[in-house]
Amino acid sequence: MNLEEEDKLVARIKGTLGRIPRTSSQVRLGMGDDAALFRPRAGHELILTCDWFLEGTHFLRENHPPDSAGWKCLARALSDIAAMGGTPRCFLLSLALPTSCTGRWLDQFLAGLRRASSRFHCALAGGDTTRREKILVNVTAVGEVRAGHAIRRRGARPGDLIYVSGHLGEAEWGLRQLKSGAKPATLRSPALKKHLYTEPRLALGQWLGEKGLATAMMDLSDGLSTDLPRLCAVSGVGARLDAASLPLVQLPIKAQNAAVDPLRLALHGGDDYELLFTVRPKQARLLPHSFRGLPITPIGVIASKQQIVLLDDNGREQRLRPLGWDPFR
Amino acid sequence: MNLEEEDKLVARIKGTLGRIPRTSSQVRLGMGDDAALFRPRAGHELILTCDWFLEGTHFLRENHPPDSAGWKCLARALSDIAAMGGTPRCFLLSLALPTSCTGRWLDQFLAGLRRASSRFHCALAGGDTTRREKILVNVTAVGEVRAGHAIRRRGARPGDLIYVSGHLGEAEWGLRQLKSGAKPATLRSPALKKHLYTEPRLALGQWLGEKGLATAMMDLSDGLSTDLPRLCAVSGVGARLDAASLPLVQLPIKAQNAAVDPLRLALHGGDDYELLFTVRPKQARLLPHSFRGLPITPIGVIASKQQIVLLDDNGREQRLRPLGWDPFR
Repeated sequence: MNLEEEDKLVARIKGTLGRIPRTSSQVRLGMGDDAALFRPRAGHELILTCDWFLEGTHFLRENHPPDSAGWKCLARALSDIAAMGGTPRCFLLSLALPTSCTGRWLDQFLAGLRRASSRFHCALAGGDTTRREKILVNVTAVGEVRAGHAIRRRGARPGDLIYVSGHLGEAEWGLRQLKSGAKPATLRSPALKKHLYTEPRLALGQWLGEKGLATAMMDLSDGLSTDLPRLCAVSGVGARLDAASLPLVQLPIKAQNAAVDPLRLALHGGDDYELLFTVRPKQARLLPHSFRGLPITPIGVIASKQQIVLLDDNGREQRLRPLGWDPFR
Repeated sequence: MNLEEEDKLVARIKGTLGRIPRTSSQVRLGMGDDAALFRPRAGHELILTCDWFLEGTHFLRENHPPDSAGWKCLARALSDIAAMGGTPRCFLLSLALPTSCTGRWLDQFLAGLRRASSRFHCALAGGDTTRREKILVNVTAVGEVRAGHAIRRRGARPGDLIYVSGHLGEAEWGLRQLKSGAKPATLRSPALKKHLYTEPRLALGQWLGEKGLATAMMDLSDGLSTDLPRLCAVSGVGARLDAASLPLVQLPIKAQNAAVDPLRLALHGGDDYELLFTVRPKQARLLPHSFRGLPITPIGVIASKQQIVLLDDNGREQRLRPLGWDPFR
């Protein structure tokens, strides 16, 4: 029987990603039918999220290695599952490609996606493909969490301490290196690696959810100055940040000379995919300084007045404007 | 607090679609958090599907009314759930828009989407938005089916009778009317209506699934000549179609004079979203001629030889080539 071009593409995706050993038998039916079948666990809720990953908006064909695009499109979606304290189960891949990318580019993209799928135990369950001049990707990720244990954005209360994982502004710094012509193949820079091969903070999110430690949580995708107001808005609170306590990225001397400001990177840089969460003061002592090698840093406190204030190094307070990434601005 | 442009857009979507009365309390958390939470029913499996709906590929901004785009992007995804015998529960909306479309176009798009969401009892649970020059839509639909009752594509056996719902080629004919300048506002033509406001065959799919009547099923999105080989390929069988039995669309005299061939429309026309299914000969008598007003027509038989043969009006057999819609051709 004569397979159509689209069917051949689906067969290649399935050939690369369809045979990943599944940690569970929950995905009963993968690609190749009208839809996927998933058997949920008793006593659990499903976490559902979808994420655009578009050429020209979220990545650049000329700068980003295809295997990074494959890795990152899934890793970004899984970061939303991490931010709810969940465990990834499966994903759907919607892919639109120019014919010129159905060869080597696709092979490398699928190799990166396969590595992420394998690393995060998240099996490909289905998808949709079409032809398009620009590369368009949309990933839907499905996770699970014990019923009632998901951490939402809206639970922050005045007095709660605000924490972040990792270092802020690192991925933004990596992006700048990439755009300035750094060779991604070398990957010597941790910042470049963080930008290209996002690590969703799944273990930390799950630990916080199981322990019931975080009153509110989200992942930092657009930058602290844009994302923190979102958490505060749904919680009906404000926040007071201490600039001196922000976990900044260590810049090389050259960048310091070039007047790159690590504080600005930390406040407004996107793509870090670190976790931002709040904890009752009484429970703060239960938090380690680092979790499996990942720093956990208190950066401020939730306030009742609905504004975001930054206390600078000189002890002056200033309103923090949202200058993170906004595609509509 | 100053909401960013993207947040305002999300707020508008939520305002239009977030308050639809839910037939169940399964969607625990809608848009506005990192991800959606969904509580599955005991003894059920989830059906997961995603569908591209892209300007220039799947619809034309100048021809398709925005409310049709809103309706259709969801209805198409739900057709995949119908094809598994499932019931829609919720959906995620990924939307990329040019700034010029965030006004009236978006209002009408959301109105159409809201009508479909309400009609098919499928609540908006989450999504992602960004800015883009062309309108890009991706819908992930989540459905449920009693565990073990999903109808797959791969169960067709030699001797099974092949059935379709409705009339074939109708939506393709509607698209031609639209492209030739028909006013969509009048909607007098059932074919135009079928093209613009897809009706997923949910009730029929659920009935077939509950009764265990269909051995294999899929929805016809790309055209019979392209889709039937897909069902046959995974079932490891072939098929023999009888041209005289195909439920053709009734064309007006003008079109008949213009030598539009209803048989070609039925074989290769896309976008019908009718159900194609197979039934054991013994069970065929249990099938009605129509289901709630929707015709159900036997069009051929499954054969063991893996090819698709069409028996024409003169009793001659010919191989049927897949000439339906393929974005990569």
